[in-house]
Amino acid sequence: MAIITLTTDLGYKDFYQAALKGSILNTLPNVNIIDITHEIEAFNISRAAFILKNCFYYFPKSTVHLIGIDTVYSESNKYLAVKYRDHFFVGSDNGIFSLIFEEAPQEIVEINIMQDLKFLHFPLADIFVKAACHLASGKPLNEIGIATDEIEERMNLHPVIEKNQIKGSVIFVDSFENVVTNVTKEIFTKVQNGRNFTLYFKRNESINQLSWHYNEVPEGEKLCLFGISNHLEIAINKANASGLLGLHNGDIIRIEFHA
Amino acid sequence: MAIITLTTDLGYKDFYQAALKGSILNTLPNVNIIDITHEIEAFNISRAAFILKNCFYYFPKSTVHLIGIDTVYSESNKYLAVKYRDHFFVGSDNGIFSLIFEEAPQEIVEINIMQDLKFLHFPLADIFVKAACHLASGKPLNEIGIATDEIEERMNLHPVIEKNQIKGSVIFVDSFENVVTNVTKEIFTKVQNGRNFTLYFKRNESINQLSWHYNEVPEGEKLCLFGISNHLEIAINKANASGLLGLHNGDIIRIEFHA
Amino acid sequence: MAIITLTTDLGYKDFYQAALKGSILNTLPNVNIIDITHEIEAFNISRAAFILKNCFYYFPKSTVHLIGIDTVYSESNKYLAVKYRDHFFVGSDNGIFSLIFEEAPQEIVEINIMQDLKFLHFPLADIFVKAACHLASGKPLNEIGIATDEIEERMNLHPVIEKNQIKGSVIFVDSFENVVTNVTKEIFTKVQNGRNFTLYFKRNESINQLSWHYNEVPEGEKLCLFGISNHLEIAINKANASGLLGLHNGDIIRIEFHA
Repeated sequence: MAIITLTTDLGYKDFYQAALKGSILNTLPNVNIIDITHEIEAFNISRAAFILKNCFYYFPKSTVHLIGIDTVYSESNKYLAVKYRDHFFVGSDNGIFSLIFEEAPQEIVEINIMQDLKFLHFPLADIFVKAACHLASGKPLNEIGIATDEIEERMNLHPVIEKNQIKGSVIFVDSFENVVTNVTKEIFTKVQNGRNFTLYFKRNESINQLSWHYNEVPEGEKLCLFGISNHLEIAINKANASGLLGLHNGDIIRIEFHA
Repeated sequence: MAIITLTTDLGYKDFYQAALKGSILNTLPNVNIIDITHEIEAFNISRAAFILKNCFYYFPKSTVHLIGIDTVYSESNKYLAVKYRDHFFVGSDNGIFSLIFEEAPQEIVEINIMQDLKFLHFPLADIFVKAACHLASGKPLNEIGIATDEIEERMNLHPVIEKNQIKGSVIFVDSFENVVTNVTKEIFTKVQNGRNFTLYFKRNESINQLSWHYNEVPEGEKLCLFGISNHLEIAINKANASGLLGLHNGDIIRIEFHA
Repeated sequence: MAIITLTTDLGYKDFYQAALKGSILNTLPNVNIIDITHEIEAFNISRAAFILKNCFYYFPKSTVHLIGIDTVYSESNKYLAVKYRDHFFVGSDNGIFSLIFEEAPQEIVEINIMQDLKFLHFPLADIFVKAACHLASGKPLNEIGIATDEIEERMNLHPVIEKNQIKGSVIFVDSFENVVTNVTKEIFTKVQNGRNFTLYFKRNESINQLSWHYNEVPEGEKLCLFGISNHLEIAINKANASGLLGLHNGDIIRIEFHA
């Protein structure tokens, strides 16, 4: 059965996500609808991108990922369907694609299945669903849009790398209040080059050892590790790091490497 | 695959909605269960009705909509199964049906598949599920109950219409804090009759132009439009209208029409 | 279609539960994934056990229940797959099984499908999913682990029973703020033996009558009944008992029986 995943800021309390699902099932009765989340904070494209980037590849190839953030029509807001690593993505060209993709996608089309979008009140149900169901049926991308190779670019805040130091920042706090930074394992390992390190954050906090698991230090102790997202995380064993350490989105962290 | 949707106040933190789903799958293994929402505020029939009214028709015909609000047995609480616009609804006769339906339903039965309801602790799993699965299997309504044409009436607060004015009220605030009123597009257009208008609310606020989309005014500016529900909404582009404008359920709004 | 249920503390706001579902669908495309809940408070094994214990049996036999609480690898944390009342359970051997099961399970294996667990970051997706999909495919337990009959024991707080009295405690507060105690209907009925009773709680509160339904007393009045879980509950008709009565998890209640 084909799969369509949903990532939206529609919440679970209104009728919008239900209307979206009804609309999908009305178009394509035999499809498996999976909620990634409907609890993206309104218009928070960065968070939606980080979430989708870290879970889409667990799904089977050919899965269609519908992104329902910032979908209101405007002349400058194009709707795209994209093939990337053999998955399909349907969403607004608001920069989110550039935050999800690490290399150029295999194929991009600007969706043109409707003549006049201007008077649509619910593009998610009216356009996105049609495009997603088309793709979930195995039909080709080029039947629903015109090929393009431009997508709106939006810069991720990348860490600043020097010979003996990485300056990064907090980009995500999860429900356990683990604090995820923008320093990937790949970057860290390359700069570390076998050396010791000290991770500094907030005024006086530091950690100088990598853990593999959250439970390798005593309960209540802070640690750092590469989590499921392969980004450097600051956590406290069985407690809420973000709250207890006062570390929030955008906060700066610094890693010093030494012999 | 047949579809059963769920609209309840059971929440996601307890075992009740899971028991409900297990019970459905135990009765009818090949059914697609779709959550409309389980986050209706306890016993909030008006909100549940507004949500269901605005999304049921997106689903394919013959979908069964199970309404799990206020289902506790009492002598005066009848359980109904209803056919309306070729969809099926199963729920308590507590007035919710009269808030969902705009015209008389095609068929109504009072469910009588169990002799003695008095000692049931979980009518949702014991009765509603049986009725919903029966209907989802394509079997006739009259096998699970006795035909009736009475349903409990509950008045929606309708707007007061005069020649040059509509007095309405706020009936729904969505997760984006868009403020939905009880003035439908149909009523508005009929009374407006091509004239200009001013929408008044709170002490000193007013809007005198209809937008098509939330983003037609600068970010942070207030606007009004007919949203997905076809009701007049008051919103702020990319911000929380309810909180910022102090507009809540039950608040009065007034529209004056002038040449 | 085989069913896998999910009970986790992963929440709905991150990518973890989505990764888990993607991983399941990638392993076993034709499976029905049902969320019991992802809103268990982090590491709250007792609550997860109470929830699962009270809903698993509504699902069809052979359903696989995946428990994703406290799954981080440690040398002392074994992963088990268990057959109990013809249902399957996959989870960490952290005591949760002893809280769910009322009698010895039919079969227990310690999962050994991977050689080296130590470097796994996401045992839920890497091990639990493989085991759950194996079982959901109808394959035997003994292919994924070594038989054992030991499970970590964790004591439920049992009520203290005397001839004329039961001392119990609050073990669960549901979303309606109904207060569930550890006194089961079975124990209550046995000790009561036809006598009258008074239920005491907090400083000055008491109830001396069992209701069948929440609505048997006037709105706003307190009552006690045996709810869906067959445990004695203290509730208030259409109001929040826990908040209004100040009754919380761990609070003591006392039932006196008299002629």
